[in-house]
Parts: sequence; C-alpha cells; structure tokens
Amino acid sequence: MEKTKVTMDKIVNLCKSRGFVYPGSEIYNGFANTWDFGPVGVELKNNIKRAWWKRFVQEEPNSYGADADILMNPNVWQASGHIQAFSDPKMDCKSCKQRFRADNLVEEHSKGSVKAEAMTNEELEAYINEHKVKCPHCGNFNWTQIRQFKLMFETSRGTVDGEKDVVYLRPETAQGVYVNFLNVQRTTRARLPFSVSQVGKSFRNEITPGNFLLRTIEFEQMEHQTFCRAEESMEIYEKTKQKALQFAEDLGLKAENLRFHDHDKLAFYAKAACDIQFKYPIGWEELNGIHHRSTHDLTQHQNLSGKSLAYLDPVTNEKFIPTVVEYAIGADRLTLAVLCEAYDEEVLADGETRVVLHFIPAIAPYKVAVLPLQKNLSEKAREINEMLSKHFMCDYDEAGSIGKRYRRQDEIGTPFCVTIDFQTLDDNTVTVRDRDTMQQIRLKVDELVAYVNEKIFW
Amino acid sequence: MEKTKVTMDKIVNLCKSRGFVYPGSEIYNGFANTWDFGPVGVELKNNIKRAWWKRFVQEEPNSYGADADILMNPNVWQASGHIQAFSDPKMDCKSCKQRFRADNLVEEHSKGSVKAEAMTNEELEAYINEHKVKCPHCGNFNWTQIRQFKLMFETSRGTVDGEKDVVYLRPETAQGVYVNFLNVQRTTRARLPFSVSQVGKSFRNEITPGNFLLRTIEFEQMEHQTFCRAEESMEIYEKTKQKALQFAEDLGLKAENLRFHDHDKLAFYAKAACDIQFKYPIGWEELNGIHHRSTHDLTQHQNLSGKSLAYLDPVTNEKFIPTVVEYAIGADRLTLAVLCEAYDEEVLADGETRVVLHFIPAIAPYKVAVLPLQKNLSEKAREINEMLSKHFMCDYDEAGSIGKRYRRQDEIGTPFCVTIDFQTLDDNTVTVRDRDTMQQIRLKVDELVAYVNEKIFW
Repeated sequence: MEKTKVTMDKIVNLCKSRGFVYPGSEIYNGFANTWDFGPVGVELKNNIKRAWWKRFVQEEPNSYGADADILMNPNVWQASGHIQAFSDPKMDCKSCKQRFRADNLVEEHSKGSVKAEAMTNEELEAYINEHKVKCPHCGNFNWTQIRQFKLMFETSRGTVDGEKDVVYLRPETAQGVYVNFLNVQRTTRARLPFSVSQVGKSFRNEITPGNFLLRTIEFEQMEHQTFCRAEESMEIYEKTKQKALQFAEDLGLKAENLRFHDHDKLAFYAKAACDIQFKYPIGWEELNGIHHRSTHDLTQHQNLSGKSLAYLDPVTNEKFIPTVVEYAIGADRLTLAVLCEAYDEEVLADGETRVVLHFIPAIAPYKVAVLPLQKNLSEKAREINEMLSKHFMCDYDEAGSIGKRYRRQDEIGTPFCVTIDFQTLDDNTVTVRDRDTMQQIRLKVDELVAYVNEKIFW
Repeated sequence: MEKTKVTMDKIVNLCKSRGFVYPGSEIYNGFANTWDFGPVGVELKNNIKRAWWKRFVQEEPNSYGADADILMNPNVWQASGHIQAFSDPKMDCKSCKQRFRADNLVEEHSKGSVKAEAMTNEELEAYINEHKVKCPHCGNFNWTQIRQFKLMFETSRGTVDGEKDVVYLRPETAQGVYVNFLNVQRTTRARLPFSVSQVGKSFRNEITPGNFLLRTIEFEQMEHQTFCRAEESMEIYEKTKQKALQFAEDLGLKAENLRFHDHDKLAFYAKAACDIQFKYPIGWEELNGIHHRSTHDLTQHQNLSGKSLAYLDPVTNEKFIPTVVEYAIGADRLTLAVLCEAYDEEVLADGETRVVLHFIPAIAPYKVAVLPLQKNLSEKAREINEMLSKHFMCDYDEAGSIGKRYRRQDEIGTPFCVTIDFQTLDDNTVTVRDRDTMQQIRLKVDELVAYVNEKIFW
C-alpha cells in the first residue's frame, strides 16, 4: 500500500461530501469564512474537545473547568487592551474597493521570506510601494494608506431610553477566566500552582485568506491558564510546551508534522511565547500557542476594577498577583489537522483505491457501523444497533453491497464494522472488521461492548 | 429526615459559594443577566448536554447531530421572519428612564390572571392606563407609548471600504439546521422521518426580569428538529412530547413538578405548540417547547434563496417540502431545574442539618471524591485519585475533618466518597460512602472503577 499526497482540496471535498463540514449558510451562497459542522464533523470535533478536557481538566491535578459568557462587561476589554490595540493594518484597493491586510500582502509577495509580523505600518507601506505589490483581486496598484481596523465585533444593548451600550463579542476566552480567577480559587480552595480551562466560541472580524477551518471569523478555543508563582513560571512554561506536544501526538498527529516555533515578537509584558505548528497540506501553520503572560492580565483587571486579585498564600501569608502561563488551542484547526493526518488513499492489491481516515478510535465520529449482510437480517441488526447505541455512537447502514458500505465507513473513519450474517441468527456471533487492517474476527454479540470499549479507551 | 423548602435565594447562594455559577463580569460589578459557570457548574451543565445528546442523537434511530455557526448570512433571518417580527413591546418610564416590557407589566400587575401574551399593543396600553400600572423602579405613572424593540443583537463586518454589512447574533439555533437540511439529508442518505439536533449558544437582547439562569441575554439551546411527512406529523408531535417528558424525568425531575402547557397563541403556520413547565421555586416556568412548525421555515428559505429544499422520496419519487416538529430546550434553565430538584436540607438524627444535592449519578459534577483520612495517607490517596481520574471526574480533598469533607461533597452532589485509611495500606481496600444513604461499604481498589461505572451508567 502506498500513501498518496493529501491536498486541502481533497480534504474539503471529502468534508462536504461525507458530512464533516459544509459551507456556512450555503443556500444563500455562503457567508465568508464560516463553516457548519455536519453529522460526522460535529461528533469528531466534540470527541476532540472531550479528549482535551479529559487530559487538561479531568486527569490533571489541581485543574478546574469554567465557562464564562461570550458577552462580558466592556471594561474587561478595556483592561485587557483589546479595545485600544486589537486591530490589523488594512489597505483598500481604490480600483476594486476590496480590503486587504497589509502584512498579508507583504508575506505573500515575499513568499514568506519577509517577517511582516514584526514590521511597522511605515515599513509595510515602504515595502508595498517599493515592490509595487498589486491587488490580488483586480491586479491594479492603487492603494489607500494603511489604516488600523478593529478586530472585535461590536454590538449593543439598549435597556435605558436613548442610551446604547457598546458590547463586544469576545476575541478570546482567556479573559473570562482571568476575571473569575479569585472566584475559582475561593470556591475550590485551590493553592498555587493551579489551572483553569475553558472551551468556547470566540470571534474576530478578520479579513482572512480563508484556508477552510484554519482562519474563520467564528471559532472555538480551548484555553488552559496556569496560575503560579513567578519563580516557578518558566519551568511551568516548559512543562506546558511538552504537555501540549504530547497531547497533539496522542491525538494521532505525527511527531514529524509538529514543531515548536518561537514568536518573532513578544508582547512587552511577556517573558516567552511560542507556537506549536502543524504541517498542513498548505504548509506549516499555527496549531496552538503557549504564552508566558506574567502578571499582566490580572494586574490590569485589578487596576481597572479596583478589586484586589491578589492570591493569599495560606502558609506564608504572602499576598501577590500570580503569574499566568497560557496554553491556547483552536478546536477547529485541531480538527482540521486531525483530518489531514488521518486522510489516506490506499492502493489495494486489486488495483482499487480506498480513501480511509485513520483516526485514533477515541475520536472517531462513529465507533461502530452495524451492517446487516442482507435486508432480511435487518431486524436482528437493528436490535444489535440499539444495544450498542446505549454505549457509543453507531451508524446503521443497510443500503448497497457490503463492500460499498465498508468503503463508506472507511471514508468517515469508523474503526469497527459489525456485520450481521445468517450465522448470527444461529449462534449470536458477528464479524468485526478492523478499519486499518481490514481483517475480520468473529465475536459473540455479548462481547462487543467490552471489545469496543477497550479499543476506544484513551 | 424532613425536607425543607427550597428558595431561589438558597440555590443562588449555594451556586456562588460552591462554584456552580458566578455573576458574569463580577469584578466589574457584573453585567446584567449574564452568569458564568464555575468548576462544578460547568461539569454539571456539560453532563446534562451529553445526556441530552446521548438520548436524542446517539440512541435515537435516524437522528443526526449538526453544529452551525452563530453568525450566518443575514438572509437567514429575513426568511425566518426574525428581522421583521422578532421584537418585544416596550415602554420607557419618563421619570426614571428605565425600560420595561409592557406585557410583563400587565402580567405582574394582574398576578398572572391576564394572559398578556395574546394581547395587542393597544390592549396592553389600555390595561396599563385603566389600572394606572406604576413603574416598578421609581413608582411613578409616567409612561411613553409602546414601541417594538428588536430582540436580535446586531453587529457588522466591514470587508469592503465604506460598506457595513449588518450581521445578527442568532436568536435560536433552529435556523442553522433548516438551512442545512438538504446537506444533512444528502450526506447521510437519511429517509423521512429523520431528526437533526444541535446544541449551541443563542442571544436575545431582552429586558429581563432576571431570575438567575431562567432568562439571560446569552443562553445555550438544545434543539431537535424532526423532518417528516405532513400526515405523520401530529403523531410525531405527540411522541416528541412524551420523549421530552421522559427525558426530564430520567434526569431526576419529579413527575409532580412537570406539566404540559399548550400555547395560548399559535403562530399562523403552526398546527400545535406546547411547553413543558417545571415548578421552580418561583413558580411554574417554561422548561422546553415542542412546536409543530409545518412546512413554514423550509418554504421560507426555499423562496428567499431560490434553492429547492424539497425532499425526493426514493421509493415513490414524490418531491415535497417536509413538515418539521421541533423540540427545543434551554440547557441553562434545565441545569437550574436540576439544581432546584436536587437541593435538599436534611435534619439529621443528631439535630444537625446537611445540605445535599441528590443529582442522579450520571450528571453529578464529580463522580468520586478521594479523601485520605489523614495527611500521611496522601501518597496512597493521590495514587488512587490518579487511577480513577482516567475514568471520571474526581475531586481530591485532604483539608479538614472527614465529616466536613463529606459535607462539602454533599453540597456539590458527589455520589461517592472514597476514603483511604490505614487499612488501605495493608489490604488495598477503601471505604465508599453513598451520598444519599450515607452508608459505607468496603471495596477493593481494583473494584472501584467497575463499581462506579455501573452506578453512573445512564
């Protein structure tokens, strides 16, 4: 069997045709850079989120979950600096009226050889003028000056006549944890170091280069904040890097497709920051970030709110603001990475090609497909399907040849196909086909739950 | 043991003090009608969402999940009628400038004896003027006329210079499923009747009477749409009512605290609609709704998008728009209902009172608390905690007397307390205390996982 080259087009097409992901609002010709998860995709993404929660909340000592609202008091974004500084340098093409990020124009023109991230607006403009960088949409060289565009979506409430309060859609989940730091500490009586994790939607009004699930205006974050003493923070930063890498590998991403990438530019308060990148079909892209945020965020919130966010050490009686080490990963781009890594086209002995997704069983959308060999076995098959469905997600399929049904399950990564045949009626046994080896074994129906549960344990 | 009266204040206080729920943005003096889930609350709510998904997606035949984005093409809300008609009748008090819903003013003044839901704005104004209904905030009778206020939050993108596209935060998840109806049908090859479920955040710019998690501007919905033939739709509507009731009971809500309530006013397209109400400490309130939506939504989307949303019957070759039966439940108000039902104050034989939450084990935030009897047993206890944490959420606690630690676990509803004592070091057994009976049994450490897994299976 040989492995064929994965392309983003193949992944997108499989996603659309098999029910992983559809273009958002597709019947209205879509809505730029939004994607909806279909029946198979929502299971995959939920399983990935659960695996992350299991690793970083359930299994990690001194770790707690939280779920703050998307809509928060606007002061949160004042303190965090997002209102003042969270924006992109953008230019409009005066010919076609399209808007672009100046740093993207430079990165693309230089094919990545220029680090636009670290350039000032003046430097970006100088580069674009010097190299006569053209509009990617209409081909003209006819730019406005660079202006900063806010990345936070704004909305408003109106509970008092005549007044409109601006409210923001959060651009990250982290601040929801920071403002609740003492609430969590007080109610759990946690001692430093401890961690608080949150999974939830964030929004950024970005002009994006698209790339499917990699950069969308609405996305789901999984963020893990570790509160600690300054003197232990760099050690925790290093450990967090390793835990983040281990998690990615344990989810099935190959070590050779993962690498650390230190940030070119650090925020003034940050002691260290790096990404873990994954080798997507379009190249190396950020999968997650690990950031040493010092005492910056908690100090900012303490200053603006006037409420102390200091931690009182119950042993030494010291009072101080903890240092924060953040590990932030995007659930959507992780789902995409998992899809790209799992995708394979295998040329079989008979010359046919099968598309197969080699997900680790724990995150496969369906654990088992229940397939009656013939339609007149469907009563027994449905009975088995009902029994198994009490334990895990099953797909029931009785349409088409058994070979075609196996292929359909391969394409959505179902690790086990349970086939009901005439022998089943006699001795209550079924065949269990393994997705990866395509080998079949015969098991008693009573053994199925334990067999599958052992395989999917993670 | 006698049961003491539950009040909303008791529930709110317990939620704040034990880490179920905190006021949103609390350090900035809050943000009206938003609440954040703490470490215990997020587990409870996640378990409830998983139980719902298990029942209505995993275990139900011909049922599929989906997850559409919150931000959709604005045409979605044009077709659904929300842009035109989703608003509340509001009046401002000219004295204190506060804004109120006119129908709420009438309902409260009449103590529920007048059905304001079915009244026109003229009828509402007539009632308020006739009864000289005063401002609940300042006590004056000095109202503006009624105006309709939009309930959808608006935001905007700006990708083209000078243009601002209005974008809405979805006020319900249902439309995300409707616009994807054919995508789901095509990729799953489902045949009618089949269902599509979605769990996700929705937003409504309501002036709310508060009541904790009952009415918030941001909330999480669990919605289940069954697509079917018109002639089977009323039977499905009746079955859905029963399934919804059964689910609420299986989650631990008592039959005597649940009732059906038919809507006083039906939408022009609807054939039937009812709520299931739960008896909260403040009275009967909607827990979920079951709505016969006819072919209305799909027809509207077909008309505006120009894309056929007809289902092609593969047997009869008929083409038609399916009828939809919707079952919609709020995850937050269900969580609140579960909290209220589970709450108990028991006067024990020794005269002491214990507060205990009798959650069914499947949805309890922590399944097991691991408690070393003395600090010098903590090494063994941590080892057991680590082993159990691979299987379910555990809380580790070594601070205070064992009696106090039991009480803390009772207050967050942990069904099993595993205590490590000196005998554990000898024979690898522990005591397991049952939350409800307070009885203890002695088990081998190796038997714990199977013992707990059997109890939490749902």
